[in-house]
Amino acid sequence: MQYPLPIARLIESYMKLPGIGEKTATRLAFYTLDMPQEDVEDFSKSLIQIKKDIHYCSICGNITETDPCVICRDPNRDQSTIMVVEQAKDVMAFEEMGEYDGLYHVLHGVLSPMDGIGPEEVNIKSLITRLQKSDDVKEVILALNSTSEGEATAMYIGKLIKPAGLKVTRLAAGLAVGSDIEYANSITLKRAVQGRTSL
Amino acid sequence: MQYPLPIARLIESYMKLPGIGEKTATRLAFYTLDMPQEDVEDFSKSLIQIKKDIHYCSICGNITETDPCVICRDPNRDQSTIMVVEQAKDVMAFEEMGEYDGLYHVLHGVLSPMDGIGPEEVNIKSLITRLQKSDDVKEVILALNSTSEGEATAMYIGKLIKPAGLKVTRLAAGLAVGSDIEYANSITLKRAVQGRTSL
Repeated sequence: MQYPLPIARLIESYMKLPGIGEKTATRLAFYTLDMPQEDVEDFSKSLIQIKKDIHYCSICGNITETDPCVICRDPNRDQSTIMVVEQAKDVMAFEEMGEYDGLYHVLHGVLSPMDGIGPEEVNIKSLITRLQKSDDVKEVILALNSTSEGEATAMYIGKLIKPAGLKVTRLAAGLAVGSDIEYANSITLKRAVQGRTSL
Repeated sequence: MQYPLPIARLIESYMKLPGIGEKTATRLAFYTLDMPQEDVEDFSKSLIQIKKDIHYCSICGNITETDPCVICRDPNRDQSTIMVVEQAKDVMAFEEMGEYDGLYHVLHGVLSPMDGIGPEEVNIKSLITRLQKSDDVKEVILALNSTSEGEATAMYIGKLIKPAGLKVTRLAAGLAVGSDIEYANSITLKRAVQGRTSL
């Protein structure tokens, strides 16, 4: 005996989500069956809505409901600085921090030759075009993850844009605030010592 | 800066699923954003569909697209035996086993006074009515989970229906096939010894 078709279909859909196997998908489908009608309708609508209403900003690549996005449209933001990040979620993290009021550029990935992701697969071309078009930009902050792919991508972009005479910076590396030296890896410690600041 | 509304809404919906917190919900929402349009539409539809097309069988309480369900409608099934299970998923498990061809009764829960679940909250009343109405039923198999709630529920139902002169049985307890004695708990071992069979 198979699950009734509507359940089988929902299990299949849940299984398309990352990290959800057949057992979990089945549990979720049966849970959905007992959820309030309204919650399930909201869920169903929000799935369609996210695909319909969320676009990528044609300037910076950030997710947005309007094009250009609220950050690119805001004349009060510092037009002289562009922070390059890997993904839209990183923009949220920096906006939550609240200390940065420049612009962003979202790559939607990092270079990873092993996975076949070259410069064409990430949003680098539009960054170059953007820099060529604008006279305002003075500094590009490469705020990429501190992974080998992130570092390599930063190097690559740095080499491309430095000749244009821009200031190119990257985030400070060192001990995470609240962390123990004991548990830090040696590369982090090395960078923390190299970048030490006077008290 | 907040997530755009469509994303925030989808995160909220994902968070209503069991075992999914804010971080996972956010990851799933962003993943959904990059899923093929078709998959997201299927997902959305199947959510609505499961609520619309899946009902509980008015006889046995199993999930079904038609009422009565295919098992209750099947004249070839043994009408003299009813197997009482906790949830619809248990019916699937026994059907997959393929050795049982009687009927079922799904309780949709077990007695759990601590959680305020009494006899009224589970599907026991309809079982009694069903037994009173039918002259065919000769045996009721209490196939409840081997948990304290499952055992207590089995005891409760047993006491209710035994006076009617029915044969009331429960599943054999013992070593799981393929398991090690070393790792079995002592209650399991006790039941395995008590229920030993001749070779």
